[in-house]
Amino acid sequence: MKFAILLACLSATATPASSDELPLADAGRIEQRIQALARFGANPNGGVSRVAFGAADLAGREYVKGLMRDAGLAVRVDAAGNIIGRIEGTGSALPVIILGSHIDSVPEGGNYDGDVGVIGAIEAATLLRERGIATHHPLEIVSFTDEEGGTVGSKAMAGKIGRDALGLMSQSGLTVGDGIRAVGGDPDRLDTARREPGDIEAYLELHIEQGAILDEAGVDIGVVEGIVGIRWWDVTIEGAANHAGTTPMDRRRDALLSAAELVLAVNRVAATTPGTQVATVGKIRAEPGAPNVIPGRVVMSLEIRDLAEAKMESVYRSIASEAAKIAQARETPVNFVEVDIALKPAPTDARLRGLIARSAADLGLSHRVMPSGAGHDAQEIANVTPIGMIFVPSKGGISHSPREFTAPADMANGVNVLLRTMLAIDGGALTK
Amino acid sequence: MKFAILLACLSATATPASSDELPLADAGRIEQRIQALARFGANPNGGVSRVAFGAADLAGREYVKGLMRDAGLAVRVDAAGNIIGRIEGTGSALPVIILGSHIDSVPEGGNYDGDVGVIGAIEAATLLRERGIATHHPLEIVSFTDEEGGTVGSKAMAGKIGRDALGLMSQSGLTVGDGIRAVGGDPDRLDTARREPGDIEAYLELHIEQGAILDEAGVDIGVVEGIVGIRWWDVTIEGAANHAGTTPMDRRRDALLSAAELVLAVNRVAATTPGTQVATVGKIRAEPGAPNVIPGRVVMSLEIRDLAEAKMESVYRSIASEAAKIAQARETPVNFVEVDIALKPAPTDARLRGLIARSAADLGLSHRVMPSGAGHDAQEIANVTPIGMIFVPSKGGISHSPREFTAPADMANGVNVLLRTMLAIDGGALTK
Repeated sequence: MKFAILLACLSATATPASSDELPLADAGRIEQRIQALARFGANPNGGVSRVAFGAADLAGREYVKGLMRDAGLAVRVDAAGNIIGRIEGTGSALPVIILGSHIDSVPEGGNYDGDVGVIGAIEAATLLRERGIATHHPLEIVSFTDEEGGTVGSKAMAGKIGRDALGLMSQSGLTVGDGIRAVGGDPDRLDTARREPGDIEAYLELHIEQGAILDEAGVDIGVVEGIVGIRWWDVTIEGAANHAGTTPMDRRRDALLSAAELVLAVNRVAATTPGTQVATVGKIRAEPGAPNVIPGRVVMSLEIRDLAEAKMESVYRSIASEAAKIAQARETPVNFVEVDIALKPAPTDARLRGLIARSAADLGLSHRVMPSGAGHDAQEIANVTPIGMIFVPSKGGISHSPREFTAPADMANGVNVLLRTMLAIDGGALTK
Repeated sequence: MKFAILLACLSATATPASSDELPLADAGRIEQRIQALARFGANPNGGVSRVAFGAADLAGREYVKGLMRDAGLAVRVDAAGNIIGRIEGTGSALPVIILGSHIDSVPEGGNYDGDVGVIGAIEAATLLRERGIATHHPLEIVSFTDEEGGTVGSKAMAGKIGRDALGLMSQSGLTVGDGIRAVGGDPDRLDTARREPGDIEAYLELHIEQGAILDEAGVDIGVVEGIVGIRWWDVTIEGAANHAGTTPMDRRRDALLSAAELVLAVNRVAATTPGTQVATVGKIRAEPGAPNVIPGRVVMSLEIRDLAEAKMESVYRSIASEAAKIAQARETPVNFVEVDIALKPAPTDARLRGLIARSAADLGLSHRVMPSGAGHDAQEIANVTPIGMIFVPSKGGISHSPREFTAPADMANGVNVLLRTMLAIDGGALTK
């Protein structure tokens, strides 16, 4: 029997390595659990408002712990409040393979962002248990703390969280520190949540795309090539505030006119530079901000994202150059101040991309290599271990909205790819 | 003696009609009183924050009443809280000539807007008293209530104030109704403050220009041809809010891009249409307004001012036509909702313009006919009587700012023109 033969080839585990031997995810069970989880923090529009540390988050966490126990996992909460369900492996002292995501949401969020990764990982563990398949490496499923508020739990696991972060106010009304305490963590001992390089064999995250690329192209699986870096600036444009009635049109230094030109320039630069970079002005304020006063100052945001730091820098430089021209032409100085939230691009591991693509192909699923434009817990965990990310389609690309939707069959496809990729890693794919 | 001869020519008054017989304003006294008034509500930047109904306004009003009494005026406060200083005329049952303006300021305002008109009118009355000159018509000097909050006192005098206006919150923290009560008025008997056509012979207002036209051209006196009409719109642009990281540049319906094009179009239309119309976007908000979300909606203000209603309408139609093109090209519907604050243009009386120009010429002062881009109490009083307005230069065109400045000599020029114009009216210039 093929199974037995493979066992001999690998090591002393019960890991099958051929897709046709492996169980397939139960789309109905995944959907039922997604819907059950969606009751915690359900909002009237059909989505959830399950912000980290709020009552709905606490209830949802208990539901997830129950599912983990049902799947045979030993459940604990680390000092950062991360829920960790673990099955020991059959090998000795091997690094753990982690499958993770999160169940907290933005206010007025949807039912799939994060949830699919947690419920999907539990489905994978459930399938292993049902088939009596043991892994060589220990396996952990992690539901990370407060992803939407700044990837708090995964930052802590990567040893990248500062003391300042604990004092920040979360959407729940608790500080992050008090929130961690409320979910059973211990903010004074965050160092115990930290993992070191070598502790983890690999990290995999299944997630909805949150964009429309897979949905519009009719592709089943996104093989994430990396998570984009993010840089933010506060852009200030100085004009001259003046009476909108007594100042003739040719006597104005209207900061909003310069801002309007710059908004268009930001879009033009990002849209015409070859590549997949994006640049956005999402926030704008004219001062003093009265209908009868010519704006003397405009403050607006600028965000640039790309997989490559050099590309982000070159896009920024092009925008700054356009801004300088506008400033000179309209006599309205433009000033860029970078906001200290910069996230470095996090490339995924090339071998893991290969394993994900091969798993999809073995299952007869179409796939596409693509960037992740959104940030994820994987981005933090990339600091300590190779990461891989699997995307499934988001209907219409809608996310952070009650209208967020991923079909049960698409979630099941994602779980099947996740399970096979994980077993390939367990089979030594990264160490061969 | 010329004076005696003139008396016979006119009527049984002591009014002289020749400029060289008349006293000249005391620039030093005007400046001293402007500075004394500026102590009430003085702010650290050298201007005043003397919003209507606040403690500084109350104190400033008492100061003004004292000056009026010193000038021989009988002082009362009408039901709208307007301070009215009156001297009876020598004629019987003649309509009153009113000289008016206001002493309330915007928050962080300057020391000249309104104040020059009130202190200047008192200077004119003081000169008459010093020379023992009596007028044929009764003369009233009015310091109007809450000009900056919506020309409250002058609206009441014109019978144009609604009950709703009394419930509005003023900058002082009191409702307008409670504010009127606080300054000695009676909001329940506003009808008693109303004047009817025929009650008033003419209304004159001396005011700083609040623009830079006179200052830049080195012209002494502005003969106001009319006060511009004002129309306001709330403009809403609908796009599609989406994740700024996961939505490629060519998949966006960014409402802020359309708004930026419209801001530029508003300026282009107003600047290229022949005439002195102005159009301004002073306020803009992108929703949801986060740096990492593509704006799904933008709400912005649009203000158009001109001396002619037809011109305002045609400028609006051109802007709406540009908006329709932008809406179609970017698939972002644009909607204009007019805000119910529209002020009709108020032309000044042609005969009064002639008298003002002649008075300036007699004094050897240069003058220019020009629109008032700012609203004034005169605009309301135009509903019941012919109005005339005299502008004096604002240094650098700065107004509604602590840096507002008009030189003592310029204020004195304005008072001299005001006095001569008033006496010409008193001499029957409007009824000949």
